[in-house]
Amino acid sequence: MVAQAAKDTHASSSPLDRLAKMLDSDMQAVNAAILDHMQSNVPMIPKLAAYLIAAGGKRIRPLLTLACTRLYDTKTSRPFALAASVEFIHTATLLHDDVVDGSEERRGKKAANLVFGNDASVLVGDFLFSRAFQLMVADGSLDVLRILSDASAIISQGEVMQLTTAGNIATSMEEYEEIIKAKTAALFASACEIGPVIAGADKSAASAMCEYGLNLGMAFQIVDDILDYNADHDKLGKTLGDDFREGKMTAPVILALAEATNEERDFWQRTLAEKKQEDGDFVQACAILKRHGAIEKGLKLAQSYAEKARLALSEAPDGRLRSLLDELVSFTVERSH
Amino acid sequence: MVAQAAKDTHASSSPLDRLAKMLDSDMQAVNAAILDHMQSNVPMIPKLAAYLIAAGGKRIRPLLTLACTRLYDTKTSRPFALAASVEFIHTATLLHDDVVDGSEERRGKKAANLVFGNDASVLVGDFLFSRAFQLMVADGSLDVLRILSDASAIISQGEVMQLTTAGNIATSMEEYEEIIKAKTAALFASACEIGPVIAGADKSAASAMCEYGLNLGMAFQIVDDILDYNADHDKLGKTLGDDFREGKMTAPVILALAEATNEERDFWQRTLAEKKQEDGDFVQACAILKRHGAIEKGLKLAQSYAEKARLALSEAPDGRLRSLLDELVSFTVERSH
Repeated sequence: MVAQAAKDTHASSSPLDRLAKMLDSDMQAVNAAILDHMQSNVPMIPKLAAYLIAAGGKRIRPLLTLACTRLYDTKTSRPFALAASVEFIHTATLLHDDVVDGSEERRGKKAANLVFGNDASVLVGDFLFSRAFQLMVADGSLDVLRILSDASAIISQGEVMQLTTAGNIATSMEEYEEIIKAKTAALFASACEIGPVIAGADKSAASAMCEYGLNLGMAFQIVDDILDYNADHDKLGKTLGDDFREGKMTAPVILALAEATNEERDFWQRTLAEKKQEDGDFVQACAILKRHGAIEKGLKLAQSYAEKARLALSEAPDGRLRSLLDELVSFTVERSH
Repeated sequence: MVAQAAKDTHASSSPLDRLAKMLDSDMQAVNAAILDHMQSNVPMIPKLAAYLIAAGGKRIRPLLTLACTRLYDTKTSRPFALAASVEFIHTATLLHDDVVDGSEERRGKKAANLVFGNDASVLVGDFLFSRAFQLMVADGSLDVLRILSDASAIISQGEVMQLTTAGNIATSMEEYEEIIKAKTAALFASACEIGPVIAGADKSAASAMCEYGLNLGMAFQIVDDILDYNADHDKLGKTLGDDFREGKMTAPVILALAEATNEERDFWQRTLAEKKQEDGDFVQACAILKRHGAIEKGLKLAQSYAEKARLALSEAPDGRLRSLLDELVSFTVERSH
């Protein structure tokens, strides 16, 4: 926390850092709730959870819950446990994702499944997921429970959809957007939507924040998928080319496939569908994406979602908080450069 | 359903069958709720869920929810969706268990993870778990949500505990009982407890049914663990000796270890702790259990829980339903013979 706060004083700090700084004491309460509620008398649970959670991560989702509550209520302490709940749902999906994907790195560290085993990752994910619901039940809002249980069901459906389209080079952009809406944007949307709900604001506020989060989440995931082909490893905190190796059908590839020559189509068929990958294939994949301007096209799509997010945000009360949430949208897209 | 009903007319039918028959139309509504709510527009989800759920299984947990509601309210339709919710939580844990254990068989069929892959089993488990909470939220009782979210958190803690004690031949009976209380008895307890809650009965009824379910669940799991060393494969519907192969520390082994000779201790150390198993080891394990009367001792323990279950049940309204729930306790223990 201290190290983070120190970083925030840099002139080059991101809107995410500035948001965290503006809501610093609130975020400390959220972090305390996270650490407190991941405890269990089964030592492996806090150990594994701490490996992933206490290791940092951007905490963007709980920060969104907090910010979207504070737009409408400057006092209530209800978002602390509920923001922790959102982070637990996210962490549970990360743990399960890494098992499903056979990931090797997460947040710049060896993936938890490689350190503690797939077994423990599955079960601790289940624990965090259950704990998230316990926290919501303790808060007592059926609206929040509805929003987050719906999001959880949607996330898992998105993950299954992603699993079943992997390696299918006929996947359309429409299908891709449906998948990322479910697996990523739904939780961003819910994290934001519960803010006004917690604050007791009216339904239109909740629905505007839901729209903001949904579109921010879409932009975020599209950029994430672009970064997998177009980032510094150190910046990314995970292995570059993971999606390629797993045969995931993401925006850059689908956009490049739309204009593929026969030879290129054969390349994607071999590497993604048949998963017969050789040394140099990832470099070639990046070259094909470049040839068709697939990165730029993907960014344009991300920009269009970013604009929708900004538009939805304009319905929130004006002020520094709203400005930072607006800047966060631009930052989300620009981090790819 | 029809085949099941036909079976029920046999004189030798179990109390479970007779309970299902007595509550036949209610159980049909529960089964309809299960089939209805496991649908999704992602085809893999109902496919995998159907493989496990529609394949049968005893549905003992939803039946308990139904029966414990009907003891106090003969009309309400609320238990249908909530019993489905209980079955979904159970199914989700089965799917994740089979991934964790690397199971080969479940309910007499190839385990789902072997047919659909570990990935799909993890994710569809997550979906069913989320769907369970959606059903509870739609019902709207925070008490039910509290009971079942608590149970879910306890179950995952029990599973992690089991994982971390596997192969540890110093595991005590106390630790074993703590594990099965968490991983099995907690959901039996909750399945029963929500009955009176749904029916709007008083707190003492809910607490009596919770006690009934908890102790029934303890007896059930102890007998299950005994059967793994002492059953016909066909009766069991899963591979005999699974626990032995996985190095699980269950009642029969712990009871035999308490009186082990040095040679026997070396045997358990090699087979369970070091997992260096050879042909004939399982037969020898069974012989050692026999030598120390470990099966009988385990059954005695199960009997003591069965008696507590019966005692708790005696607080429920008298009648045929209570009698069948009482017989179910005896049946749970006797199925091992």
